[in-house]
Amino acid sequence: MSLYVGFTGAPLDRAEPARHDPAMLAALAANPAALLLDMTDFVPGVADGALAWTPLTPLPAEELLLLGLIDNIPRFARIDPGAVAAKRTPELMALLDSLAAGEAGVYATARSVLDWHARHRFCANCGARTAPHHAGWARLCPVCSTEHYPRTDPVVIMLAEFEDRVLIGRQASFAPGRYSALAGFVEVGESIEEAVARELHEEAGVVATSVRYIASQPWPFPSQLMIACIASVADDVVTLDLAELEDAKWVSRAEVAASLAAEPDAVFGAPPRYAIANSLFNAWLGEI
Amino acid sequence: MSLYVGFTGAPLDRAEPARHDPAMLAALAANPAALLLDMTDFVPGVADGALAWTPLTPLPAEELLLLGLIDNIPRFARIDPGAVAAKRTPELMALLDSLAAGEAGVYATARSVLDWHARHRFCANCGARTAPHHAGWARLCPVCSTEHYPRTDPVVIMLAEFEDRVLIGRQASFAPGRYSALAGFVEVGESIEEAVARELHEEAGVVATSVRYIASQPWPFPSQLMIACIASVADDVVTLDLAELEDAKWVSRAEVAASLAAEPDAVFGAPPRYAIANSLFNAWLGEI
Repeated sequence: MSLYVGFTGAPLDRAEPARHDPAMLAALAANPAALLLDMTDFVPGVADGALAWTPLTPLPAEELLLLGLIDNIPRFARIDPGAVAAKRTPELMALLDSLAAGEAGVYATARSVLDWHARHRFCANCGARTAPHHAGWARLCPVCSTEHYPRTDPVVIMLAEFEDRVLIGRQASFAPGRYSALAGFVEVGESIEEAVARELHEEAGVVATSVRYIASQPWPFPSQLMIACIASVADDVVTLDLAELEDAKWVSRAEVAASLAAEPDAVFGAPPRYAIANSLFNAWLGEI
Repeated sequence: MSLYVGFTGAPLDRAEPARHDPAMLAALAANPAALLLDMTDFVPGVADGALAWTPLTPLPAEELLLLGLIDNIPRFARIDPGAVAAKRTPELMALLDSLAAGEAGVYATARSVLDWHARHRFCANCGARTAPHHAGWARLCPVCSTEHYPRTDPVVIMLAEFEDRVLIGRQASFAPGRYSALAGFVEVGESIEEAVARELHEEAGVVATSVRYIASQPWPFPSQLMIACIASVADDVVTLDLAELEDAKWVSRAEVAASLAAEPDAVFGAPPRYAIANSLFNAWLGEI
């Protein structure tokens, strides 16, 4: 697939068997070539447009997150239960935008797991303090033995389409002029297609008649799975939910193309390249 | 879309604004027509092929889960923090199979949220006991103010395809003769397509060259989002991960059709109609 999707393409072999085999894990950690990702407060170290790694020095087992293998070299990150996630600043996002998607995908994997550890130190089932388990890919409760796994929260992000125009919206928190696709969390008891239809109806009052899947992306703030779709809708009458959106409007192919190209007279500011909303606009243009 | 997918099509208006508006919620609960889903230990009451409801009697706010509206009538379920989920017995699955998909979808919504409450009574961030919030669609920690939301765990389920045959596998726990599509949880830091490729490689040693999305389904045991795909693979040489699969084999369209029709000489027992694996086989046959 030639569509560019940010945060995909991490060149990781996740080496999943080592998560369940303490001897295999110990051998990877003892490998003199093993590397540790530089991730203080979840901001990546970057050198020459790539993630920065340092030689792995011995760490307690409960601080070791096995990311996997890259170029057959074991790769780890350090679980710091006291870590406080750095905010998603424009500087951080510019830094990630300077990385190739595959490098950003490695960062995404590490960030989502480390941030989950920092925010899930206790057992949701019984309240006891838990400890990292399975090479950092789980936490185990020593009291009730419940295993907890990192969350991956599916989110639908979609363009409503009517007579060769698509609906874009902006939240009050967006930068001036910026518009994007509409989005929302998939809830239990609904399919992707039903979540797309529900969110479009809740936020914009439009009625989906069919939904087609386009692409997906991991989004590490903190751990969404972004699922991009295009929905045909029954008409173009919009009823905004002002609690969710400040404005919404229909745009043509020419207007989307001008915005993606950041032309001076573009009618909206497009989402950045690393966001799947950008890929979704490109996919829609490519579907002609 | 004419493809049958179990657990989809719930006729629920989720009435999301009422989750955030105590007065609106109270009005729905006070509506004399309001109904309560019969869900003792998460087994649905069923009458005449449909879910059984009883008139809502006053409940403490922290026991009220607002499912939404059906036919403009408010629908609730009762949050019982002491509930113990009934096992997924053949009897329960036969009961669900007797329901239309939309009815099973309402059950799926209720079961996933109620089961989440029963297993998430404490704050993962600080260990304090939490309480239901937002009409049962969240839990709030009274100590650190963290809001917790129900989990929806994305799972990929896929057929590897090579030269007009697809790969099916069986776990040791399956009923004799039963085979299905391969499956696994989507992890943080990967897209749907990457999860499909990783799982196929981990479990069967095959290499995906392209992945196409087919359909999705909520699965309420406890709260998966099943994402069904077909992956073209580079060859048909299978290397089984025996920790995951007991056997795998390639089957033709005729063999899949015979299995779906439960013909006596079928080479495998197909998954039941309510499982998206069944829909996936039907989609593959329909793609000819």
